[in-house]
Amino acid sequence: MTLSQKKLTIEPKIGRIFLTMARDIVIQKFGGTSVGSPERIKAIAKRIVNTCESGKGVVVVVSAMGDTTDELISLTREITETPDPREYDALISTGENISAALLAMAIQALGKPAISLTGRQAGVRTESTHSRAKILTVDTQRILSELSQGKVVVVTGFQGFTEFDDITTIGRGGSDTSAVVLAASLGVDVCEIFTDVDGIYTTDPRKVTSARKLESISYEEMLELASLGAKVLHPRAVECAKENGVKLHVRSSFEDRVGTLVEEAKAMEGNRAVTGATLNESEAEISILKVPDHPGVAGMLFEKLAHQHINVDMIIQTVEENQINNITFTVGIDDLNESVEITKTVAQELKAEGVVFDDNISKLSIVGVGMISKPGVAAQLFKVLGDLGINIRMISTSEIKVSCIIDKDRGRDALNAVHEAFSLDKDS
Amino acid sequence: MTLSQKKLTIEPKIGRIFLTMARDIVIQKFGGTSVGSPERIKAIAKRIVNTCESGKGVVVVVSAMGDTTDELISLTREITETPDPREYDALISTGENISAALLAMAIQALGKPAISLTGRQAGVRTESTHSRAKILTVDTQRILSELSQGKVVVVTGFQGFTEFDDITTIGRGGSDTSAVVLAASLGVDVCEIFTDVDGIYTTDPRKVTSARKLESISYEEMLELASLGAKVLHPRAVECAKENGVKLHVRSSFEDRVGTLVEEAKAMEGNRAVTGATLNESEAEISILKVPDHPGVAGMLFEKLAHQHINVDMIIQTVEENQINNITFTVGIDDLNESVEITKTVAQELKAEGVVFDDNISKLSIVGVGMISKPGVAAQLFKVLGDLGINIRMISTSEIKVSCIIDKDRGRDALNAVHEAFSLDKDS
Repeated sequence: MTLSQKKLTIEPKIGRIFLTMARDIVIQKFGGTSVGSPERIKAIAKRIVNTCESGKGVVVVVSAMGDTTDELISLTREITETPDPREYDALISTGENISAALLAMAIQALGKPAISLTGRQAGVRTESTHSRAKILTVDTQRILSELSQGKVVVVTGFQGFTEFDDITTIGRGGSDTSAVVLAASLGVDVCEIFTDVDGIYTTDPRKVTSARKLESISYEEMLELASLGAKVLHPRAVECAKENGVKLHVRSSFEDRVGTLVEEAKAMEGNRAVTGATLNESEAEISILKVPDHPGVAGMLFEKLAHQHINVDMIIQTVEENQINNITFTVGIDDLNESVEITKTVAQELKAEGVVFDDNISKLSIVGVGMISKPGVAAQLFKVLGDLGINIRMISTSEIKVSCIIDKDRGRDALNAVHEAFSLDKDS
Repeated sequence: MTLSQKKLTIEPKIGRIFLTMARDIVIQKFGGTSVGSPERIKAIAKRIVNTCESGKGVVVVVSAMGDTTDELISLTREITETPDPREYDALISTGENISAALLAMAIQALGKPAISLTGRQAGVRTESTHSRAKILTVDTQRILSELSQGKVVVVTGFQGFTEFDDITTIGRGGSDTSAVVLAASLGVDVCEIFTDVDGIYTTDPRKVTSARKLESISYEEMLELASLGAKVLHPRAVECAKENGVKLHVRSSFEDRVGTLVEEAKAMEGNRAVTGATLNESEAEISILKVPDHPGVAGMLFEKLAHQHINVDMIIQTVEENQINNITFTVGIDDLNESVEITKTVAQELKAEGVVFDDNISKLSIVGVGMISKPGVAAQLFKVLGDLGINIRMISTSEIKVSCIIDKDRGRDALNAVHEAFSLDKDS
């Protein structure tokens, strides 16, 4: 169970589509690293001006410059530990205003007309729930008007405004989601996400040298990978793209090569079973031992953890003897201490025997829509691990994913072996 | 002649006055130093919350935190030397957004409801002339609505928005002018200007130990003092206050004492002749020697200087012999080199004999509306200087001001003597 996944806010389908212009518009999103300094902003500006030479209208969505948001947050902390969400949004939204204005200036300096638009000016209406507002509608009138005057339109990501004319921010995955929503509203079918990696890989190239960049990946696989810790795209943005039929082109800010297209799965059959493999080395395992089994035990524990915003990943329950269970689950390593404390309190209340934990674990996962039609994929994974003499401590599966908790010191070996066993290093 | 004074943009009279609430509203403006750090913001917040205890509604206008605007400008410089004014405004207006949100949070942290409003949210409509837009109207609906909910309303100074929904900044003297305009729009008759000095003094206390804080000063005198270099208020804000009948209460951000009221002159007669004296030690004198006199000579020179945004202060022309003149004028010391270059070029064109300059000068001035009805004030000044053996190099007068250029090394002596001679150290 991936609790984090259940918390996804999914933007509603955006209805307004201007078919007349859609084919002539390109949407490009640049993240905080891409606009991290004036030099980088100038480099991005060049790239955007090159894109303009195709004759298409260009809409750019930007995040705040590298550390700006963190600096603003630390200013806040010096004022209060519990800032009012409305004021917090008014404050941190300035980060995107700054990068958007600077980028517009940099584009203009290259002789191409450009204009920066705030969330409000770009017509991005949201709910009134500050700091994690969902986008409701986009009134694209201003964007289209500026495009028709030959300007590059630079829109601040991550922000919008409410019906009461207040500034909101849209929470995690913000700027990616802003870009997807704008693409949907403008009827553009591909949204380019520029980032510091050049695409989605079969696995982490730092861990497996034969990792291969994928030409294409399905939304579902990308969602699984994102939930498994691939930071390149937030699950919310992928979900929003899927809902609205917008393809995501993940590519490098620094190089001009084609990246990876995130799109509808093309063919369920005939393809390979596994598309990618991941190794998450920052989880920890907690067990609550010999819990008298009565209804609501697990619910009580996981409710308390959720209340502290702790995402629980995998859970297994084993029957020790009659009416006595062990419950084992994993959390992010940063949440370990707090989770152990909470679990100990619960263990006492439940008269369980005790709580043990272990952070010497890794989670190995394989993902692929091909699994649906190819039986035996999980078995093949277990065999690879067994052949290496690696003990599987926990297993969790979805329709298109198998995850195993194994000892941390065997993680890299396992990942390499699995990558090879499923021929991830070879083109299909 | 003070060219800078002629460049004043004067806000139009603001018509909308809500008499019902006006008596119950206090307007306080805090400058960049007052909100220069989280600690200072917290101190200001306490002060504002104290003001709230009177039961009045409080509207606060803030500038950007200390160096924020400079930092944003230097970011711009790294992108382009000639930023588009619209983008420049979009960028630097974020400085006030940040300080306003932080101040609202700090007030809330003390248990008092508060809300920050951008220029747009506060209904501050301006012209479309970016970077120096004049304020056209203020729609006070949102401010009044928030006040009626018991909130302190923190408005970003220095900014507004155009009919096209673009962000503007209003140029020099910005936040003071914003505060005055809001006072006028809300029908509030006193606008409190909090600053790092505790009022307007008869002269600079760092130069004359017996300098005395004034209880009150007329708009006209304040305008002269501001033009003479008193940085506490920008002439534009004073002019706007005068036009709209708003009194300015200049007082300290750090102490609770009453400051100085800038208001309509109460009685032209019966009062003292001189209200204040100033010594400007950062001017320089340039002379163009033996210019053949034909029409348009002076115009040509000063037009070229104005074109480079150089403010010329005093100008005298002396007849050397038939048809041959000397022209002497003063400029700010920072503009000296550029001015000399321009003057040399003009001198060549005019076949003048040469150009000389001197930065060892100071400008001593006395200001007072009482001068209008009391003849002999200038003569008295010249006598004081004459008694000290100080040579007067140039003289310039207005109805309520006399200025003399003297040698810099005698400046402080002269200021002290004048301060005493006109009894500025004594209550009237």
